[in-house]
Amino acid sequence: DTSAKVIDGKLVSKQIKDEVAEEVARMKEAIGIVPGLAVILVGSRKDSQTYVRSKKKACEAVGIKSYEANLPEDSTEEDVLKHISAFNNDPSVHGILVQLPLPRHMNEETILNAVSIERDVDGFHPLNIGRLAMQGRYPLFVPCTPKGCMELLHRYGVEIKGKRAVVIGRSNIVGMPAALLLQKANATVSIVHSQTKNPEEITRQADIVISAVGVANLVRGSWIKPGAVVIDVGINPVDDPESPRGYRLVGDVCYEEACEVASAVTPVPGGVGPMTIAMLLSNTLESAKRIHNFK
Amino acid sequence: DTSAKVIDGKLVSKQIKDEVAEEVARMKEAIGIVPGLAVILVGSRKDSQTYVRSKKKACEAVGIKSYEANLPEDSTEEDVLKHISAFNNDPSVHGILVQLPLPRHMNEETILNAVSIERDVDGFHPLNIGRLAMQGRYPLFVPCTPKGCMELLHRYGVEIKGKRAVVIGRSNIVGMPAALLLQKANATVSIVHSQTKNPEEITRQADIVISAVGVANLVRGSWIKPGAVVIDVGINPVDDPESPRGYRLVGDVCYEEACEVASAVTPVPGGVGPMTIAMLLSNTLESAKRIHNFK
Ligand SMILES: NC(=O)C1=CN([C@@H]2O[C@H](COP(=O)(O)OP(=O)(O)OC[C@H]3O[C@@H](n4cnc5c(N)ncnc54)[C@H](OP(=O)(O)O)[C@@H]3O)[C@@H](O)[C@H]2O)C=CC1
Ligand SMILES: NC(=O)C1=CN([C@@H]2O[C@H](COP(=O)(O)OP(=O)(O)OC[C@H]3O[C@@H](n4cnc5c(N)ncnc54)[C@H](OP(=O)(O)O)[C@@H]3O)[C@@H](O)[C@H]2O)C=CC1
Repeated sequence: DTSAKVIDGKLVSKQIKDEVAEEVARMKEAIGIVPGLAVILVGSRKDSQTYVRSKKKACEAVGIKSYEANLPEDSTEEDVLKHISAFNNDPSVHGILVQLPLPRHMNEETILNAVSIERDVDGFHPLNIGRLAMQGRYPLFVPCTPKGCMELLHRYGVEIKGKRAVVIGRSNIVGMPAALLLQKANATVSIVHSQTKNPEEITRQADIVISAVGVANLVRGSWIKPGAVVIDVGINPVDDPESPRGYRLVGDVCYEEACEVASAVTPVPGGVGPMTIAMLLSNTLESAKRIHNFK
Repeated sequence: DTSAKVIDGKLVSKQIKDEVAEEVARMKEAIGIVPGLAVILVGSRKDSQTYVRSKKKACEAVGIKSYEANLPEDSTEEDVLKHISAFNNDPSVHGILVQLPLPRHMNEETILNAVSIERDVDGFHPLNIGRLAMQGRYPLFVPCTPKGCMELLHRYGVEIKGKRAVVIGRSNIVGMPAALLLQKANATVSIVHSQTKNPEEITRQADIVISAVGVANLVRGSWIKPGAVVIDVGINPVDDPESPRGYRLVGDVCYEEACEVASAVTPVPGGVGPMTIAMLLSNTLESAKRIHNFK
C-alpha cells in the first residue's frame, strides 16, 4: 500500500508566513520598526532573477520591506563590497543576502564574509557554522534550507533525539548544516557523499533521511528503511515531453517508491522548496527583533 | 591471535618533535625569530599545573620560547582578558592557550573568544571550527588532539578516503573536530554519543574508530569490525592496588580485546596522549611561520 504521509511544505510554509506577518505587524504597531531585507544580485542569470523576484514578493506579502541592489555581471568585487557595506550600515536593513552563484571573477568567500554577522540571515558565515557545530554554542542564524527541513520534522511531530539520521550530501548550504542540526537535536548522524562506498546500505539504517544531492531518483525505495521519514531537498529537472516547458522538476528521491516504504515523505515540488523562503522571512524578522531588542 | 599492530604515539610524537626542533632552528638561523607560546593558567588545580609544566618542558626541548601567566583562582574575568590582550599584542608570542577548565565564575566562551584567531593554536575559536566544517575552507589551526589522531593515521599509512569512520564522543575539543577532519578527508562519518541507541552495532561497521568518551572499557572487542583501526583518545583512571598510586590509566577501549580483532590500535598511555603536545608545538611553529611569512 502507498501509505506514506505527505509532508506538505506548501501548507507549513503558509502557516509560517502567516505567523511572520502577524509578528511583523505587532512589531510595527509596538515600536514602529519594519524589518528590512536587502538582496544583492550580480549579473543577469535568469534563475537567479527568478529567485530574487520571489524573495521580494514573499517579503511584500508579510510586510517585510525589501531592498535590492542589481549590479552588472562585469562589476568588480569592490563594487559588491561597497554595496554590502552600505547595507551593513543602513539601520532599516536587518538582513542581507547575496544571491549565489556570483560571477566567476569574484571570490565568494571574501564577499560572503563581508556581510555583518548580525545581518547574515543566510547563516553562511563560518562563525555561524562554527557555533552550529559546537556544543553549548548557538548561531545567530541557521541556514534557511536546513532550518526548513528541521521545521518540517518538528511540525509533523517527528522525534529526532536518539534516532538514526542519514544526510546525503554535505554542501555548505544544505547537507553539512542539516547534519549539524540533526546532531544538535541528539540524532545519531551519518553523512553520505560522493565518496561513500555503500550509500544504499547506510541510508537503509536511518529513521530520518535528508537528501540534498542534485541527482534525480538517486534514492530508491530499496534505500529506505520501512517507516522512515524522508526529506527530499533535491530539485532536479528531468525531460518531460508532456510538460509545456519540456521538463519537470523532481527530487533526489524516487517519490512513488518512497511512498510505499516510508512513513512520511516530502514531495518535490511542494516540500522543502517553499520552506526555504519562509525561513528567510523568519530569520529576517528574528534579526530585526534582536537588533531592536523586541520580544 | 593477538595480531593488531600497536600504533606507537610516543615514537611518532618524538619524530614530530624532532621535525619541529629542526624547523625552529632553521627559522632562527634564517630570520632570527624564535616561536613563542604563552600559556595562561588560572587557579591551582594539580592536574592543570602538571599539563602546563609538561607543555613548558616540551617547548624548551624543541627551542620554542614559553611564556606563562599564573593567575589566582579568584581572579576576575577582566584580569584574564587583560593578560590575553597583552599576549595578543606581544610580537614574540605566536601561540596563546588558556588551560581549561577555568574557574566556575568565568565564562569560557568569552575568554576563549578573546584569543586572537591568528594565535589560537588550540583551534577552539568558533571561526576555526566553522572553517573546519566547511567545504573549500580551511582553519588557521586544527585542534591538537584530533590533529594528533589524524597524524597517527597518516603516519601509519591508513587510507581514509571512502572508508567508514565512527567517532564516539562529540565534545568541542576532541570528538566533534575529529569527525569534521575525517569527513574532510572523505571518510563516511557517523557520530556516536550518549543519546545513541545502538552504539555497538554502529561502531562495528567502521573501518576506523576514534573513541573520545572518558569511560574505561566502553568499547569491547565485539564493537570492533575485524581489521579495523582503533584510535583511543580516552584517559581514564581505574583502581589498581598494585600500582604505587593506587590507580592506573586506561583508555575507552578494552585494549586486550581490541588487539584480537583490530588491525591496529593505539595503547593508553603512549598512543594519542603524547601526540597532543607534539601537535601544539607544531601549531605554534606553523603560527610563527605564518606571522613572519617564513616558508
Ligand atoms: N529546496 C531548496 O530550497 C533548495 C534545494 N536545493 C537542491 O538541493 C540539491 C543539492 O544542492 P546543494 O547542496 O547546493 O548541491 P551541491 O552540488 O553543492 O552538493 C551536492 C552534494 O551531494 C553529494 N553527492 C554528489 N553525488 C552524489 C552521489 N551519487 N551520492 C551521494 N552523494 C552525492 C556531493 O558530494 P561531495 O561533497 O563528495 O562532492 C555534495 O556534497 C540540488 O538539487 C539543489 O537544487 C539546494 C538549495 C535549496
Ligand atoms: N589524549 C589526550 O591528549 C586527550 C585525552 N582526552 C580524554 O578523552 C576523553 C574524552 O574527553 P572530552 O572529549 O574532553 O570529554 P567530554 O566529557 O567533553 O565528552 C565526552 C563525549 O562522550 C559522549 N559520551 C558519554 N558517555 C557515552 C557513552 N556511554 N556512549 C557514547 N558516548 C558517550 C558524550 O556524549 P554527549 O555529548 O551526548 O554528552 C560526549 O560527547 C577523556 O577520557 C579525556 O581524558 C581529552 C583531551 C585530550
